[in-house]
Amino acid sequence: MMQKKPKAVVLLSGGLDSATVLAMAMGEGYECCCLSFAYGQRQQVELERAKANVARQGIEKHLILRLDLDAIGGSALTTDAAVPKGRSQTEMNASIPITYVPGRNTIFLSYAMAWAEVLGAGDVFIGVNVMDYSGYPDCRPEFLEAFERVANLATRAGVEGETRLRVHAPLLKMTKKEIIEKGFELGVDYGLTHSCYDPDGQGRACGSCDSCLLRLKGFAEAGRVDPVEYQ
Amino acid sequence: MMQKKPKAVVLLSGGLDSATVLAMAMGEGYECCCLSFAYGQRQQVELERAKANVARQGIEKHLILRLDLDAIGGSALTTDAAVPKGRSQTEMNASIPITYVPGRNTIFLSYAMAWAEVLGAGDVFIGVNVMDYSGYPDCRPEFLEAFERVANLATRAGVEGETRLRVHAPLLKMTKKEIIEKGFELGVDYGLTHSCYDPDGQGRACGSCDSCLLRLKGFAEAGRVDPVEYQ
Repeated sequence: MMQKKPKAVVLLSGGLDSATVLAMAMGEGYECCCLSFAYGQRQQVELERAKANVARQGIEKHLILRLDLDAIGGSALTTDAAVPKGRSQTEMNASIPITYVPGRNTIFLSYAMAWAEVLGAGDVFIGVNVMDYSGYPDCRPEFLEAFERVANLATRAGVEGETRLRVHAPLLKMTKKEIIEKGFELGVDYGLTHSCYDPDGQGRACGSCDSCLLRLKGFAEAGRVDPVEYQ
Repeated sequence: MMQKKPKAVVLLSGGLDSATVLAMAMGEGYECCCLSFAYGQRQQVELERAKANVARQGIEKHLILRLDLDAIGGSALTTDAAVPKGRSQTEMNASIPITYVPGRNTIFLSYAMAWAEVLGAGDVFIGVNVMDYSGYPDCRPEFLEAFERVANLATRAGVEGETRLRVHAPLLKMTKKEIIEKGFELGVDYGLTHSCYDPDGQGRACGSCDSCLLRLKGFAEAGRVDPVEYQ
Protein backbone atom coordinates (compact mmCIF):
# COMPACT_ATOMS: atom_id res chain seq x y z
CA MET A 1 0.00 0.00 0.00
CA MET A 2 1.31 3.44 -0.90
CA GLN A 3 1.90 5.76 2.00
CA LYS A 4 0.01 9.03 1.82
CA LYS A 5 2.24 11.96 0.92
CA PRO A 6 2.53 14.78 3.46
CA LYS A 7 0.97 18.03 2.26
CA ALA A 8 2.92 21.25 1.80
CA VAL A 9 1.86 24.75 0.82
CA VAL A 10 4.18 26.19 -1.84
CA LEU A 11 4.13 29.92 -2.51
CA LEU A 12 4.22 30.17 -6.29
CA SER A 13 4.72 33.57 -7.88
CA GLY A 14 5.25 32.46 -11.44
CA GLY A 15 8.90 33.47 -11.16
CA LEU A 16 12.01 31.39 -11.67
CA ASP A 17 12.75 30.89 -7.98
CA SER A 18 9.36 29.59 -6.86
CA ALA A 19 9.10 27.28 -9.91
CA THR A 20 12.37 25.72 -8.74
CA VAL A 21 11.14 25.49 -5.16
CA LEU A 22 8.00 23.68 -6.34
CA ALA A 23 10.09 21.10 -8.19
CA MET A 24 12.31 20.68 -5.10
CA ALA A 25 9.33 20.17 -2.77
CA MET A 26 7.80 17.65 -5.18
CA GLY A 27 11.17 15.90 -5.36
CA GLU A 28 11.17 15.63 -1.57
CA GLY A 29 7.88 13.72 -1.75
CA TYR A 30 5.36 16.38 -0.74
CA GLU A 31 1.86 16.68 -2.13
CA CYS A 32 2.17 20.34 -3.09
CA CYS A 33 -0.71 22.79 -2.77
CA CYS A 34 0.24 25.97 -4.61
CA LEU A 35 -0.69 29.45 -3.43
CA SER A 36 -0.44 32.49 -5.71
CA PHE A 37 -1.58 36.08 -5.35
CA ALA A 38 -3.07 38.68 -7.65
CA TYR A 39 -2.02 41.88 -5.95
CA GLY A 40 -2.28 44.64 -8.50
CA GLN A 41 1.25 43.92 -9.67
CA ARG A 42 2.28 45.06 -13.10
CA GLN A 43 3.51 41.64 -14.10
CA GLN A 44 0.14 39.89 -14.56
CA VAL A 45 1.92 37.56 -16.94
CA GLU A 46 3.51 36.00 -13.82
CA LEU A 47 0.15 34.50 -12.84
CA GLU A 48 -0.41 33.04 -16.30
CA ARG A 49 2.99 31.36 -16.14
CA ALA A 50 2.22 30.08 -12.62
CA LYS A 51 -1.00 28.49 -13.91
CA ALA A 52 0.78 26.90 -16.88
CA ASN A 53 3.50 25.52 -14.62
CA VAL A 54 0.95 24.12 -12.15
CA ALA A 55 -0.84 22.35 -15.01
CA ARG A 56 2.41 20.92 -16.36
CA GLN A 57 3.43 19.65 -12.90
CA GLY A 58 0.06 17.95 -12.39
CA ILE A 59 -0.72 19.90 -9.20
CA GLU A 60 -4.31 19.41 -8.01
CA LYS A 61 -4.71 22.38 -5.68
CA HIS A 62 -3.84 25.89 -6.83
CA LEU A 63 -5.39 28.77 -4.91
CA ILE A 64 -5.07 32.28 -6.34
CA LEU A 65 -6.01 34.96 -3.84
CA ARG A 66 -6.76 38.54 -4.74
CA LEU A 67 -4.93 40.98 -2.46
CA ASP A 68 -5.41 44.71 -2.16
CA LEU A 69 -1.70 45.53 -1.94
CA ASP A 70 -2.21 48.32 -4.48
CA ALA A 71 -4.51 50.07 -2.00
CA ILE A 72 -1.60 50.19 0.46
CA GLY A 73 0.91 51.37 -2.13
CA GLY A 74 4.52 52.22 -1.42
CA SER A 75 6.07 50.20 -4.25
CA ALA A 76 6.93 50.60 -7.92
CA LEU A 77 5.46 47.13 -8.45
CA THR A 78 1.98 48.21 -7.45
CA THR A 79 1.98 51.85 -8.56
CA ASP A 80 3.03 53.88 -11.57
CA ALA A 81 6.52 54.75 -10.30
CA ALA A 82 9.37 53.96 -12.70
CA VAL A 83 11.23 50.66 -12.30
CA PRO A 84 15.02 51.24 -12.13
CA LYS A 85 16.98 49.87 -15.07
CA GLY A 86 20.56 48.82 -15.80
CA ARG A 87 21.84 48.83 -12.23
CA SER A 88 24.95 46.98 -11.03
CA GLN A 89 24.79 44.37 -8.26
CA THR A 90 26.43 46.92 -5.92
CA GLU A 91 23.74 49.49 -6.69
CA MET A 92 21.02 46.88 -6.15
CA ASN A 93 22.35 45.99 -2.71
CA ALA A 94 23.10 49.56 -1.61
CA SER A 95 19.56 50.34 -0.46
CA ILE A 96 16.06 48.95 -0.48
CA PRO A 97 14.82 49.46 -4.04
CA ILE A 98 11.44 50.97 -4.88
CA THR A 99 10.37 47.57 -6.24
CA TYR A 100 10.22 46.43 -2.60
CA VAL A 101 6.55 45.87 -1.67
CA PRO A 102 6.04 46.73 2.01
CA GLY A 103 4.94 43.71 3.99
CA ARG A 104 4.67 41.43 0.98
CA ASN A 105 6.42 38.31 2.22
CA THR A 106 4.87 38.65 5.68
CA ILE A 107 1.42 38.86 4.12
CA PHE A 108 2.16 35.95 1.75
CA LEU A 109 3.46 33.76 4.58
CA SER A 110 0.47 34.66 6.76
CA TYR A 111 -1.92 33.38 4.12
CA ALA A 112 0.25 30.29 3.53
CA MET A 113 0.18 29.60 7.27
CA ALA A 114 -3.62 29.99 7.36
CA TRP A 115 -4.15 27.68 4.41
CA ALA A 116 -1.68 25.13 5.78
CA GLU A 117 -3.68 25.03 8.99
CA VAL A 118 -6.93 24.41 7.09
CA LEU A 119 -5.30 21.74 4.86
CA GLY A 120 -3.52 20.04 7.75
CA ALA A 121 -0.15 20.75 6.12
CA GLY A 122 2.90 21.11 8.35
CA ASP A 123 5.21 22.62 5.76
CA VAL A 124 5.35 25.88 3.83
CA PHE A 125 7.86 26.51 1.05
CA ILE A 126 8.95 29.98 -0.06
CA GLY A 127 11.47 30.88 -2.75
CA VAL A 128 13.27 33.70 -1.01
CA ASN A 129 16.94 34.12 -1.51
CA VAL A 130 19.53 36.05 0.42
CA MET A 131 22.28 36.07 -2.22
CA ASP A 132 20.43 37.89 -4.98
CA TYR A 133 17.81 39.44 -2.78
CA SER A 134 18.08 42.98 -4.11
CA GLY A 135 18.06 44.39 -0.60
CA TYR A 136 14.57 43.30 0.48
CA PRO A 137 14.46 43.05 4.28
CA ASP A 138 11.83 40.30 4.24
CA CYS A 139 14.11 37.84 2.44
CA ARG A 140 16.55 37.41 5.31
CA PRO A 141 16.95 34.21 7.37
CA GLU A 142 16.26 35.99 10.66
CA PHE A 143 12.95 37.20 9.24
CA LEU A 144 11.99 33.65 8.26
CA GLU A 145 12.91 32.28 11.68
CA ALA A 146 10.87 34.98 13.39
CA PHE A 147 7.92 34.23 11.14
CA GLU A 148 8.07 30.50 11.90
CA ARG A 149 7.84 31.40 15.57
CA VAL A 150 4.78 33.55 14.90
CA ALA A 151 3.16 30.75 12.89
CA ASN A 152 3.54 28.29 15.73
CA LEU A 153 2.03 30.72 18.22
CA ALA A 154 -0.79 31.98 15.98
CA THR A 155 -2.34 28.66 15.06
CA ARG A 156 -3.80 25.53 16.61
CA ALA A 157 -0.24 24.14 16.65
CA GLY A 158 0.62 26.64 19.36
CA VAL A 159 -2.24 25.76 21.65
CA GLU A 160 -3.14 22.15 21.13
CA GLY A 161 0.28 20.79 20.26
CA GLU A 162 -0.77 19.66 16.80
CA THR A 163 1.57 19.58 13.80
CA ARG A 164 4.12 22.35 14.06
CA LEU A 165 4.61 24.48 10.99
CA ARG A 166 7.99 24.57 9.32
CA VAL A 167 8.94 27.33 6.90
CA HIS A 168 11.32 26.05 4.22
CA ALA A 169 13.39 28.41 2.10
CA PRO A 170 15.60 25.97 0.20
CA LEU A 171 17.02 28.67 -2.10
CA LEU A 172 18.06 30.90 0.75
CA LYS A 173 21.80 30.60 0.27
CA MET A 174 21.93 29.51 -3.38
CA THR A 175 23.15 31.77 -6.17
CA LYS A 176 20.92 32.28 -9.21
CA LYS A 177 23.32 30.04 -11.14
CA GLU A 178 22.89 27.22 -8.61
CA ILE A 179 19.11 27.64 -8.59
CA ILE A 180 18.95 27.35 -12.37
CA GLU A 181 21.24 24.31 -12.38
CA LYS A 182 19.07 22.64 -9.75
CA GLY A 183 15.95 23.44 -11.77
CA PHE A 184 17.34 21.91 -14.96
CA GLU A 185 18.29 18.81 -12.94
CA LEU A 186 14.65 18.56 -11.76
CA GLY A 187 13.16 19.20 -15.21
CA VAL A 188 11.74 22.69 -14.57
CA ASP A 189 10.49 24.38 -17.74
CA TYR A 190 11.77 27.93 -17.28
CA GLY A 191 9.77 28.97 -20.33
CA LEU A 192 6.81 28.79 -17.92
CA THR A 193 8.29 31.40 -15.58
CA HIS A 194 8.53 35.18 -15.62
CA SER A 195 10.89 37.49 -13.73
CA CYS A 196 10.69 40.93 -15.34
CA TYR A 197 9.35 43.87 -13.29
CA ASP A 198 8.44 45.80 -16.43
CA PRO A 199 7.23 43.53 -19.26
CA ASP A 200 5.62 44.88 -22.46
CA GLY A 201 2.04 44.20 -23.54
CA GLN A 202 2.98 40.77 -24.88
CA GLY A 203 4.56 39.78 -21.59
CA ARG A 204 8.08 40.00 -22.98
CA ALA A 205 10.83 40.81 -20.48
CA CYS A 206 12.63 44.18 -20.57
CA GLY A 207 16.08 42.68 -19.98
CA SER A 208 17.32 45.61 -17.90
CA CYS A 209 15.42 45.77 -14.59
CA ASP A 210 17.10 44.30 -11.48
CA SER A 211 15.14 41.08 -11.84
CA CYS A 212 15.98 40.55 -15.53
CA LEU A 213 19.65 41.34 -14.92
CA LEU A 214 19.89 38.80 -12.09
CA ARG A 215 18.08 36.20 -14.19
CA LEU A 216 20.23 36.72 -17.29
CA LYS A 217 23.43 36.62 -15.24
CA GLY A 218 22.26 33.33 -13.66
CA PHE A 219 21.53 31.69 -17.02
CA ALA A 220 24.86 32.91 -18.43
CA GLU A 221 26.80 31.55 -15.45
CA ALA A 222 24.94 28.23 -15.66
CA GLY A 223 25.80 28.06 -19.37
CA ARG A 224 22.11 27.76 -20.28
CA VAL A 225 19.84 29.65 -22.65
CA ASP A 226 16.92 31.49 -21.06
CA PRO A 227 13.82 30.25 -22.93
CA VAL A 228 11.64 33.34 -22.24
CA GLU A 229 11.22 36.11 -24.79
CA TYR A 230 12.91 39.48 -24.40
CA GLN A 231 11.81 42.76 -25.99
CA MET B 1 2.93 76.13 17.05
CA MET B 2 1.14 72.82 17.41
CA GLN B 3 3.34 69.76 17.31
CA LYS B 4 2.44 67.25 14.62
CA LYS B 5 0.75 64.19 16.03
CA PRO B 6 2.47 60.84 15.54
CA LYS B 7 0.56 58.52 13.25
CA ALA B 8 -0.78 55.14 14.31
CA VAL B 9 -2.57 52.40 12.42
CA VAL B 10 -5.62 51.16 14.35
CA LEU B 11 -7.20 47.85 13.37
CA LEU B 12 -10.92 48.57 13.47
CA SER B 13 -13.33 45.68 13.12
CA GLY B 14 -16.53 47.48 14.00
CA GLY B 15 -16.65 45.55 17.25
CA LEU B 16 -16.77 46.84 20.80
CA ASP B 17 -13.11 46.18 21.57
CA SER B 18 -11.55 47.95 18.60
CA ALA B 19 -13.90 50.94 19.00
CA THR B 20 -12.53 51.28 22.53
CA VAL B 21 -8.94 50.90 21.33
CA LEU B 22 -9.48 53.68 18.78
CA ALA B 23 -10.72 56.02 21.50
CA MET B 24 -7.73 55.08 23.68
CA ALA B 25 -5.21 55.71 20.87
CA MET B 26 -6.84 59.07 20.10
CA GLY B 27 -6.72 59.88 23.79
CA GLU B 28 -2.98 59.18 23.79
CA GLY B 29 -2.53 61.82 21.09
CA TYR B 30 -2.11 59.72 17.96
CA GLU B 31 -3.39 60.67 14.53
CA CYS B 32 -5.25 57.43 13.92
CA CYS B 33 -5.44 55.79 10.50
CA CYS B 34 -8.06 53.04 10.66
CA LEU B 35 -7.76 49.74 8.84
CA SER B 36 -10.75 47.42 8.36
CA PHE B 37 -11.24 44.25 6.34
CA ALA B 38 -14.06 42.80 4.29
CA TYR B 39 -13.29 39.11 4.46
CA GLY B 40 -16.43 37.25 3.56
CA GLN B 41 -17.52 37.32 7.18
CA ARG B 42 -21.18 36.87 7.96
CA GLN B 43 -21.36 40.00 10.03
CA GLN B 44 -21.19 42.60 7.23
CA VAL B 45 -22.97 44.95 9.59
CA GLU B 46 -19.65 45.23 11.46
CA LEU B 47 -18.16 47.22 8.59
CA GLU B 48 -21.12 49.60 8.47
CA ARG B 49 -20.69 50.28 12.19
CA ALA B 50 -16.93 50.76 11.69
CA LYS B 51 -17.63 53.40 9.02
CA ALA B 52 -20.17 55.17 11.21
CA ASN B 53 -17.76 55.20 14.14
CA VAL B 54 -14.90 56.53 11.99
CA ALA B 55 -17.15 59.35 10.76
CA ARG B 56 -18.22 60.22 14.29
CA GLN B 57 -14.62 60.28 15.54
CA GLY B 58 -13.54 62.56 12.68
CA ILE B 59 -10.90 60.13 11.38
CA GLU B 60 -9.47 61.19 8.00
CA LYS B 61 -7.97 57.92 6.81
CA HIS B 62 -10.02 54.72 6.78
CA LEU B 63 -8.81 51.94 4.50
CA ILE B 64 -11.08 48.94 3.96
CA LEU B 65 -9.30 46.03 2.31
CA ARG B 66 -11.07 43.11 0.70
CA LEU B 67 -9.53 39.79 1.80
CA ASP B 68 -10.18 36.35 0.38
CA LEU B 69 -10.34 34.59 3.75
CA ASP B 70 -13.48 32.76 2.61
CA ALA B 71 -11.41 31.07 -0.13
CA ILE B 72 -9.19 29.62 2.60
CA GLY B 73 -12.11 28.54 4.76
CA GLY B 74 -11.82 26.66 8.03
CA SER B 75 -14.10 28.86 10.12
CA ALA B 76 -17.77 29.20 10.93
CA LEU B 77 -17.36 32.95 10.41
CA THR B 78 -16.50 32.54 6.74
CA THR B 79 -18.49 29.41 5.84
CA ASP B 80 -21.98 28.04 6.42
CA ALA B 81 -21.13 26.02 9.55
CA ALA B 82 -23.38 26.70 12.55
CA VAL B 83 -22.25 29.22 15.17
CA PRO B 84 -22.38 27.67 18.67
CA LYS B 85 -24.99 29.20 21.00
CA GLY B 86 -25.60 29.48 24.72
CA ARG B 87 -22.20 28.23 25.88
CA SER B 88 -20.72 28.87 29.33
CA GLN B 89 -17.36 30.63 29.80
CA THR B 90 -15.84 27.22 30.65
CA GLU B 91 -17.11 25.71 27.43
CA MET B 92 -15.80 28.70 25.46
CA ASN B 93 -12.31 28.28 26.89
CA ALA B 94 -12.18 24.47 26.68
CA SER B 95 -11.08 24.35 23.04
CA ILE B 96 -10.59 26.54 20.01
CA PRO B 97 -14.11 27.32 18.77
CA ILE B 98 -15.14 26.97 15.14
CA THR B 99 -15.55 30.75 15.00
CA TYR B 100 -11.74 30.90 15.07
CA VAL B 101 -10.54 32.13 11.65
CA PRO B 102 -7.17 30.52 10.84
CA GLY B 103 -4.43 33.11 10.49
CA ARG B 104 -6.75 36.07 10.88
CA ASN B 105 -4.84 38.23 13.35
CA THR B 106 -1.52 37.43 11.68
CA ILE B 107 -2.92 38.51 8.32
CA PHE B 108 -4.52 41.64 9.83
CA LEU B 109 -1.28 42.63 11.59
CA SER B 110 0.74 41.98 8.42
CA TYR B 111 -1.39 44.46 6.51
CA ALA B 112 -1.27 46.94 9.39
CA MET B 113 2.52 46.64 9.42
CA ALA B 114 2.68 47.20 5.64
CA TRP B 115 0.41 50.25 5.79
CA ALA B 116 2.30 51.66 8.79
CA GLU B 117 5.51 51.44 6.81
CA VAL B 118 3.96 53.32 3.89
CA LEU B 119 2.41 55.97 6.17
CA GLY B 120 5.55 56.37 8.26
CA ALA B 121 3.65 55.29 11.37
CA GLY B 122 5.57 53.60 14.17
CA ASP B 123 2.58 52.29 16.08
CA VAL B 124 -0.11 49.70 15.44
CA PHE B 125 -3.08 49.20 17.75
CA ILE B 126 -5.07 45.97 17.95
CA GLY B 127 -8.00 45.18 20.21
CA VAL B 128 -7.11 41.64 21.22
CA ASN B 129 -7.86 40.45 24.66
CA VAL B 130 -6.58 37.50 26.63
CA MET B 131 -9.28 37.47 29.33
CA ASP B 132 -12.33 36.92 27.17
CA TYR B 133 -10.47 35.58 24.20
CA SER B 134 -12.65 32.53 23.59
CA GLY B 135 -9.62 30.32 23.09
CA TYR B 136 -8.16 31.97 19.99
CA PRO B 137 -4.40 31.26 19.86
CA ASP B 138 -3.63 34.50 18.02
CA CYS B 139 -4.87 36.66 20.89
CA ARG B 140 -2.10 35.71 23.30
CA PRO B 141 0.68 38.08 24.45
CA GLU B 142 3.45 35.73 23.25
CA PHE B 143 1.93 35.82 19.77
CA LEU B 144 1.92 39.63 19.77
CA GLU B 145 5.53 39.80 20.95
CA ALA B 146 6.60 37.36 18.23
CA PHE B 147 4.74 39.38 15.63
CA GLU B 148 6.40 42.62 16.72
CA ARG B 149 9.75 40.91 16.19
CA VAL B 150 8.68 39.84 12.68
CA ALA B 151 7.51 43.37 11.88
CA ASN B 152 10.86 44.86 12.82
CA LEU B 153 12.72 42.34 10.67
CA ALA B 154 10.36 42.44 7.69
CA THR B 155 10.37 46.16 7.06
CA ARG B 156 12.73 49.05 6.41
CA ALA B 157 12.96 49.44 10.20
CA GLY B 158 14.90 46.20 10.34
CA VAL B 159 17.48 47.17 7.72
CA GLU B 160 17.92 50.89 7.79
CA GLY B 161 17.30 51.48 11.48
CA GLU B 162 14.29 53.72 10.85
CA THR B 163 11.30 53.95 13.17
CA ARG B 164 10.73 50.67 14.92
CA LEU B 165 7.20 49.35 14.91
CA ARG B 166 5.41 48.86 18.20
CA VAL B 167 2.33 46.65 18.46
CA HIS B 168 -0.04 47.93 21.15
CA ALA B 169 -2.78 45.75 22.59
CA PRO B 170 -4.09 47.95 25.40
CA LEU B 171 -7.06 45.68 26.14
CA LEU B 172 -4.91 42.59 26.50
CA LYS B 173 -5.49 42.05 30.20
CA MET B 174 -8.73 43.95 30.68
CA THR B 175 -12.05 42.28 31.35
CA LYS B 176 -15.02 43.15 29.15
CA LYS B 177 -16.44 45.12 32.07
CA GLU B 178 -13.24 47.20 32.32
CA ILE B 179 -13.17 47.75 28.56
CA ILE B 180 -16.73 49.04 28.56
CA GLU B 181 -16.09 51.30 31.56
CA LYS B 182 -13.02 52.74 29.82
CA GLY B 183 -15.05 53.29 26.64
CA PHE B 184 -17.81 55.19 28.45
CA GLU B 185 -15.12 57.31 30.11
CA LEU B 186 -13.75 58.18 26.63
CA GLY B 187 -17.17 58.83 25.10
CA VAL B 188 -17.37 55.77 22.82
CA ASP B 189 -20.80 55.32 21.25
CA TYR B 190 -21.31 51.57 21.59
CA GLY B 191 -24.43 51.88 19.45
CA LEU B 192 -21.94 52.18 16.58
CA THR B 193 -20.41 48.78 17.30
CA HIS B 194 -21.40 45.21 16.57
CA SER B 195 -20.27 41.97 18.23
CA CYS B 196 -22.69 39.22 17.18
CA TYR B 197 -21.40 36.28 15.10
CA ASP B 198 -24.88 35.52 13.79
CA PRO B 199 -27.00 38.66 13.26
CA ASP B 200 -30.35 38.65 11.46
CA GLY B 201 -31.08 40.45 8.17
CA GLN B 202 -31.55 43.76 9.98
CA GLY B 203 -28.15 43.45 11.68
CA ARG B 204 -29.74 42.72 15.07
CA ALA B 205 -27.64 40.62 17.46
CA CYS B 206 -28.66 37.05 18.36
CA GLY B 207 -27.87 37.42 22.07
CA SER B 208 -26.65 33.83 22.48
CA CYS B 209 -23.39 33.31 20.51
CA ASP B 210 -20.10 33.46 22.44
CA SER B 211 -19.54 37.05 21.38
CA CYS B 212 -23.02 38.28 22.41
CA LEU B 213 -22.78 36.46 25.74
CA LEU B 214 -19.41 38.06 26.54
CA ARG B 215 -20.71 41.47 25.50
CA LEU B 216 -23.93 41.24 27.52
CA LYS B 217 -22.06 40.02 30.58
CA GLY B 218 -19.66 42.97 30.26
CA PHE B 219 -22.46 45.53 30.05
CA ALA B 220 -24.27 43.91 32.98
CA GLU B 221 -21.13 43.94 35.14
CA ALA B 222 -20.40 47.55 34.19
CA GLY B 223 -23.99 48.46 35.15
CA ARG B 224 -24.64 49.90 31.69
CA VAL B 225 -27.32 49.33 29.07
CA ASP B 226 -26.11 47.92 25.74
CA PRO B 227 -27.45 50.34 23.09
CA VAL B 228 -27.47 47.84 20.21
CA GLU B 229 -30.63 46.01 19.14
CA TYR B 230 -31.17 42.35 19.92
CA GLN B 231 -33.53 39.99 18.05
